[in-house]
Amino acid sequence: MKRIHQIALIIFLFSTSNVIDAKTYKWRLAQSWESDSPLAYSVKQFISLTNQLSAGQLKITVESQEQHKKPFGIFDLVKSGKYEMGHSESSYWRKKDRNTLFFSSVPFGMIAPELYSWFYHGDGIRLMEKVYSKYGLLSFPGGNTGNQMMGWFRREVQCLANLKGLKMRMTGIAGEVMRNVGVNVVDVPSNELYKSLDDGDIDAVGYFGPAIDFDLGFYKVAPYYYTGWNAPSSEMQFLINQDAFEELPKSLQQVIKNAMRLAAYDMYTKITHENGVKLNKIKEDFPNIKFRALPNSVTRRLIRETRRLMNDIAEQGDDLTREIMSSMETHKNNSRKWTRIGEQAYLNNSSDVL
Amino acid sequence: MKRIHQIALIIFLFSTSNVIDAKTYKWRLAQSWESDSPLAYSVKQFISLTNQLSAGQLKITVESQEQHKKPFGIFDLVKSGKYEMGHSESSYWRKKDRNTLFFSSVPFGMIAPELYSWFYHGDGIRLMEKVYSKYGLLSFPGGNTGNQMMGWFRREVQCLANLKGLKMRMTGIAGEVMRNVGVNVVDVPSNELYKSLDDGDIDAVGYFGPAIDFDLGFYKVAPYYYTGWNAPSSEMQFLINQDAFEELPKSLQQVIKNAMRLAAYDMYTKITHENGVKLNKIKEDFPNIKFRALPNSVTRRLIRETRRLMNDIAEQGDDLTREIMSSMETHKNNSRKWTRIGEQAYLNNSSDVL
Repeated sequence: MKRIHQIALIIFLFSTSNVIDAKTYKWRLAQSWESDSPLAYSVKQFISLTNQLSAGQLKITVESQEQHKKPFGIFDLVKSGKYEMGHSESSYWRKKDRNTLFFSSVPFGMIAPELYSWFYHGDGIRLMEKVYSKYGLLSFPGGNTGNQMMGWFRREVQCLANLKGLKMRMTGIAGEVMRNVGVNVVDVPSNELYKSLDDGDIDAVGYFGPAIDFDLGFYKVAPYYYTGWNAPSSEMQFLINQDAFEELPKSLQQVIKNAMRLAAYDMYTKITHENGVKLNKIKEDFPNIKFRALPNSVTRRLIRETRRLMNDIAEQGDDLTREIMSSMETHKNNSRKWTRIGEQAYLNNSSDVL
Repeated sequence: MKRIHQIALIIFLFSTSNVIDAKTYKWRLAQSWESDSPLAYSVKQFISLTNQLSAGQLKITVESQEQHKKPFGIFDLVKSGKYEMGHSESSYWRKKDRNTLFFSSVPFGMIAPELYSWFYHGDGIRLMEKVYSKYGLLSFPGGNTGNQMMGWFRREVQCLANLKGLKMRMTGIAGEVMRNVGVNVVDVPSNELYKSLDDGDIDAVGYFGPAIDFDLGFYKVAPYYYTGWNAPSSEMQFLINQDAFEELPKSLQQVIKNAMRLAAYDMYTKITHENGVKLNKIKEDFPNIKFRALPNSVTRRLIRETRRLMNDIAEQGDDLTREIMSSMETHKNNSRKWTRIGEQAYLNNSSDVL
């Protein structure tokens, strides 16, 4: 009997090392979005994946805009350690650090597969780390919305003059470009957009694409839906408090990193899907919606203004600003050559029949 | 002392359940490719991910074509249980079961984001399961090559007559379409392709895209590189022996499922990247290579022949054949509407300057 007890004790001592390894970590994640926002999809996937892959060792609770009331405060909430993680959009922090601007979307920039090629096989991840590490933060791709539409217009845009004085909601760099060609760019909270458009307080709304726009009902009051240039892809962001991350065992760090990467891809697939579903709903239920591309002359002008603005941003920035911009530009040019003879050539060559 | 022993025993009994859970599983995976093939990328990622996420509980050894010598025998190797897993291409099994044909590539079919939307949010995964379950196999997306080029031609194709009697290597459904318009479709092993083309034994080679074609050197002897229609996306395949899978604890099943999904996405990103890199190399080092799209009239004819062939396949097939084909066609039409006003509109509207 004594021998059995000794064996039990030895196994007990061994098993305690497992017990220490199996310590449970409780994290909190603050997301910029409301809990039912389509942008929260990658967070839902991420939570499901960490649950599956950490064997319950990592429990992450999500708090949405409704709880923390700080959709534009995620950077500080994670930096301070109040939350170990956040989900938001890098461009929100441009006033804290202009170099955060480039990691969400750039007008006339890369489409999603080109952008992921830059992040994971070009300089993207390394440069993003360079920007965020000085704040004790880790930043990772957080899911892509794919191509965004320019938005919903009450009236047709036939020339540049039609844009002058037009009151339009448009955010980010694209909003500044629009302002520079004479648009009266205004900021209206999301939940007031429909009413403003219906009342004629604003003339146009740039938002996302069919997947997200549909539920807001813009098609009822603004029948011209313009194709995009403002955000050919838009990447969300996972933010992590670096100290909290370093306290985790390596196995859980790997769970988190892989779960983020998979959740980000999953969101791109999901939104691609929903864009198709909702676009078909719009086409069937609202046959009067007119899909338009801007006239060529207007697009040319927007490209010129975007270049001018980007040159200003580069000049006013620091060495890192210029390193990021030059890396993105080179990567876009190189990967675009393939997109042009690959997907684009196929789509164009079969476009009148398929 | 007795009490301590009792506690130790209780802990011992608890800990044994952990010990049983932590059993190590050794699996073998047979891949159709040689170990250094770019198509093996998703397998490399998959192995790295299962190592990271299973805490060493799942050890998978990879055997390549060089070892098992059966690139077209993976289905049987996994079905028989000789290997627990495989990595190959679903269309290789079309002679065993015609319904396996559709899960790799279809001429004039979906591009990669549309296809993933079908797999993960449409009927794709469910229909693939329906096809493979009767063989005791599980099949999952195994990584996409993105859009494939039609291939390398020694002479320009200016009209349909130029294709008549042309000796060309082209596989799959696209090969049959080519045969139906008068091409002399031949099968040449990959390692003899360059020499055959150089010797003039064949006139053209359809292979993949720049990422994979480059190393084979076709550009040296066939200066016309034609854009694709034959495989707008091409999905590889993970095969799993269902009995082996069911013997695994649920936690390892989840590791495998998530690792496969992530590895598949990772391969699409990697090949997108390599296509850009290698295309730029070709353009810089071999400025005489001419990039061409088929004349419109030829493309129209190929579309007609593809439809005719697909109709034959549907008629000769069973209910499941028709269910798969109808699901794919509907999904393509719906998701393509979004691709057209999304990525394609953006690419076209900025194409002469960006």
